[in-house]
Amino acid sequence: MPTYRAPVEQVQFLLNHVVGFQAHAQLPGFADATPDVVEAILSEGGRICEEVLQPLNVSGDREGCKRQADGSVITPKGFREAYKAYAEGGWIGLAAPAEYGGQGLPYTLAAAINEFATSANMAFSLYPGLTRGAQAALLVHANDEQKNLYMPKLVSGEWSGTMNLTEPHCGTDLGLIKTRAKRNADGTFSITGQKIFISAGEHDLTTNIIHLVLARIEGAPAGTKGISMFIVPKFLPDAQGNPGARNAVSCGSIEHKMGIHGNSTCVMNYDGATGFLIGEENRGLNAMFVMMNEARLGVAVQGLSMSEVAYQNAVSYARDRIQGRALSGAKDKDKAADPIIVHPDVRRMLLEMRAFNEAARGLILEAALQADVVARSSDEKAREEAEDMLGLLTPVLKGVLTDVGFDNTVKAQQVFGGHGYVGEWGMEQFVRDARIAMIYEGANGIQALDLVGRKLPKDNGRAVMAYFKKVGETVQRAENDATLAPLAKSLKTGLDHLQKATMWLMQNALAKPDNAGAASTDYMHLFGLVAMGQMWLVMAQAALRCKADDPSTAAEMDAKLIVARFYMERIMPETGARLARLSAGAEALMALPAEAF
Amino acid sequence: MPTYRAPVEQVQFLLNHVVGFQAHAQLPGFADATPDVVEAILSEGGRICEEVLQPLNVSGDREGCKRQADGSVITPKGFREAYKAYAEGGWIGLAAPAEYGGQGLPYTLAAAINEFATSANMAFSLYPGLTRGAQAALLVHANDEQKNLYMPKLVSGEWSGTMNLTEPHCGTDLGLIKTRAKRNADGTFSITGQKIFISAGEHDLTTNIIHLVLARIEGAPAGTKGISMFIVPKFLPDAQGNPGARNAVSCGSIEHKMGIHGNSTCVMNYDGATGFLIGEENRGLNAMFVMMNEARLGVAVQGLSMSEVAYQNAVSYARDRIQGRALSGAKDKDKAADPIIVHPDVRRMLLEMRAFNEAARGLILEAALQADVVARSSDEKAREEAEDMLGLLTPVLKGVLTDVGFDNTVKAQQVFGGHGYVGEWGMEQFVRDARIAMIYEGANGIQALDLVGRKLPKDNGRAVMAYFKKVGETVQRAENDATLAPLAKSLKTGLDHLQKATMWLMQNALAKPDNAGAASTDYMHLFGLVAMGQMWLVMAQAALRCKADDPSTAAEMDAKLIVARFYMERIMPETGARLARLSAGAEALMALPAEAF
Repeated sequence: MPTYRAPVEQVQFLLNHVVGFQAHAQLPGFADATPDVVEAILSEGGRICEEVLQPLNVSGDREGCKRQADGSVITPKGFREAYKAYAEGGWIGLAAPAEYGGQGLPYTLAAAINEFATSANMAFSLYPGLTRGAQAALLVHANDEQKNLYMPKLVSGEWSGTMNLTEPHCGTDLGLIKTRAKRNADGTFSITGQKIFISAGEHDLTTNIIHLVLARIEGAPAGTKGISMFIVPKFLPDAQGNPGARNAVSCGSIEHKMGIHGNSTCVMNYDGATGFLIGEENRGLNAMFVMMNEARLGVAVQGLSMSEVAYQNAVSYARDRIQGRALSGAKDKDKAADPIIVHPDVRRMLLEMRAFNEAARGLILEAALQADVVARSSDEKAREEAEDMLGLLTPVLKGVLTDVGFDNTVKAQQVFGGHGYVGEWGMEQFVRDARIAMIYEGANGIQALDLVGRKLPKDNGRAVMAYFKKVGETVQRAENDATLAPLAKSLKTGLDHLQKATMWLMQNALAKPDNAGAASTDYMHLFGLVAMGQMWLVMAQAALRCKADDPSTAAEMDAKLIVARFYMERIMPETGARLARLSAGAEALMALPAEAF
Repeated sequence: MPTYRAPVEQVQFLLNHVVGFQAHAQLPGFADATPDVVEAILSEGGRICEEVLQPLNVSGDREGCKRQADGSVITPKGFREAYKAYAEGGWIGLAAPAEYGGQGLPYTLAAAINEFATSANMAFSLYPGLTRGAQAALLVHANDEQKNLYMPKLVSGEWSGTMNLTEPHCGTDLGLIKTRAKRNADGTFSITGQKIFISAGEHDLTTNIIHLVLARIEGAPAGTKGISMFIVPKFLPDAQGNPGARNAVSCGSIEHKMGIHGNSTCVMNYDGATGFLIGEENRGLNAMFVMMNEARLGVAVQGLSMSEVAYQNAVSYARDRIQGRALSGAKDKDKAADPIIVHPDVRRMLLEMRAFNEAARGLILEAALQADVVARSSDEKAREEAEDMLGLLTPVLKGVLTDVGFDNTVKAQQVFGGHGYVGEWGMEQFVRDARIAMIYEGANGIQALDLVGRKLPKDNGRAVMAYFKKVGETVQRAENDATLAPLAKSLKTGLDHLQKATMWLMQNALAKPDNAGAASTDYMHLFGLVAMGQMWLVMAQAALRCKADDPSTAAEMDAKLIVARFYMERIMPETGARLARLSAGAEALMALPAEAF
């Protein structure tokens, strides 16, 4: 059975020495998050994930969710109690505003806890995750009455939330949505249609479920400009705000999925269900985008989480499993064979995961901190810069972290050989669970298009120019240090490739948009490689400082310097191949007629 | 539900115009395989795979194999009838010697049919696959009495075969095997021990199962030099050669696997079972290696098969699914949206699969033809050259085709978006099924070590030098043709990288074996990239010839030229990154103490 230990110290290292968490003490909620408080929160959050959520991961996968004849859904054994403990511990409302019962702490900390929860039990973590997404949308778009009615219950976890976008015939292209909203005399709407792939659509964890639903009001313009967003509660709140009459929304079936079996993914049928408009008519996509941006960062975390827990288990197996001898001669002569961690190729797999995990975690915390600045800073300039950076990095993190995170679960499984393919060790579940993150909240190809088509050209490239400047400065700061110079050189080459790729896009994509599409995935991964390289160089600098300040950390910091070197030598070289591929342009891709495939 | 169409014409193009199948007409069995006969065999083989095996693929996955309380195993509904039809059609004994009832046809054709069968139903195809492996081992190592007793029944498919290597504590390192063989007075042995991960270990498809088992005879030397191979029939043949007394071998449980649910993967318990020694005492590993080499090529085929069937379904979905508009403007204005095949990034995924499939199929057929030459040619020089090439390419094909083949099933699933994650469309099954091929018959890391540690240095690098010469000549032949020159240039760069990598290994791996281990996987993939590039250049040359000879093939041949260009522009550039990575050496990999992971 797999195990999990929350990487609390890794998060602390990043917060305190790399991303500059304490420098934001002036932001609302940050003053309360002193290093001691942060340590207590991370430890306690880690503990509940390790002790309450993780033990239900394998059983939740095997048992799955079960739809009853009456349309109700039973979650796996233990999920109800775990959900109650998680909600009562305040983890769902950790970063939510105090006025609705939240703890008002930095979103950055919530992102860290989200990593732990997902590593421990990805299927479970989606229930609070969707609820937090619903909170985010309501906070920005709902009116005060709606906020007062729904927010406290969502923050406490008494009620849960969902996002209803996808229909059988449309996912990416929301302009095709058919679900209809008919205006009622009392100002409410009657919602009719079918939604699919609705995570946490129906379950037994909470007394009510608040569906946020995209639908088209009668007479609305065609396409994306005619979509509105509605609150459709499973039970309509009564005058006291308690669950009242059952609404005409029901779970038609549960999807049979490759993984995340513990999460109830539903086909939801709306049969004239009462809905309440949120925000403006026909502006539903804007409202949904608020949820989606936070959701995309949350999905990026899933890539990291699955890679981290898969790595931990692969390391443990590689240390224990004896098989064959080291190439350089027997290491453990008293035993019949050496542990497989002596083999360079096993170490390669482990280090590829490790190098990714630490950099990805740094990038997630950095992005989360930017989200905190955007949401909480009173400094307009700081907000604008943070928004630029967050907008630019969100598609990169969603796309790259879930692609590579999935690959890493496959690598971790490979370390186990045949034992990785059978259920017993739990490794194949990580692969099956991680796979969805590349698909939902915008398939990774859509993230790549968002990056090249929207985020790059935005404000004449202001965000990307600022990013290049930042990476360039990191290189400059490191170039004259003997230890860091080789790392800086590698990052500089990567940055050069990214800049060349950006230039290529500027010169070739405007006149021929297919060139942008053809380059998009390679560009996104090239960007991700540089972003992780930048993070490794900053982490290496921090490791040198920490080691000098506190020699007792030397072993730990030396390990970081070794992994930094591994990253630059073994992962960074991919930037050249990515640049060469995308520079080939769209011609060979577009030449084949559709019928010739 | 997924569909499948056997790529008969693709195989014919390769046999007739690329790998030079007809040039071997002088080999035994080849004279019967005229182009007309080949076409008939491929069509008929394709038909049974499409019509009999494929319809059981999804149901076989859902139903799985069931072990009964008495230790017997029931295969999914329809498998018995399909097996009977497949055996009676002569497909199991297609390339087996006529003296044992086989058809004596080229192994090359059996490899092509094996591709079809695996695409249609991978779990099913393992049953005849293991039986063919058992035939191969018996043919080389068993005595005449054993061959006469077992071969006809295995060739007809009346009985099936298995390979029993792995034990709970050892897979890769067979020197650790604990299963014991006690010598009986009558010359037989009593076998005691437990084997795990035994494909087709117990089932209801045949009247007897012939287990080939590795075990250690009492008093044998420790390690790999004390392993012998035994025939352990489920039912001991009686005087007439019919299944007689039940032997003391039984299925203890079925493994719960990620995929290939239709195949019965068993824990096999030997409790003093009667076994018959095959070949010499303590030379069991040599006997097993015969099976393993053929098995490795068979597993390489699985990588291709899964990629091919996944590709076919992804193409069909990409043509049908309408969603969004082409970047260059609406293509199908009458519809609400364009089919997603208009998108460059969707085409990128499809073309990556297609470029792999066609090259991989060419390499498989080329290797199979070499296997035919090794087994059947009377020309010693030709046999030696074929053996060199086959030995060199087998680990490359097993490792690269299964790694990339798996990645391609993931890509095909991605084309389906959310629909790829649910069982309904069958795409997630391809991912789960394909995953095992990277693990069994020697995990791919072992293939990479076999390549760099054994195959490269063998006979002072004779095989690899011959290979470089061959690729170099392909480049030269193409350099002066206007259409082919850009392709040749790309292959030349790839070859240059491969030669540099080989040189690096010669200079760095001898003194420090960890450098070989650290380089092995990158080297194997670099080799695979060049091998596929070489195949594409040869296919492009053939396409030009075919088009000139028969203008009616122009559209088809032009498509090949486009895919060849795609391969060189979009896939070949990876060679540079592979070279850079492996040239970094083992230092960063080995620096981290095991406890610091």
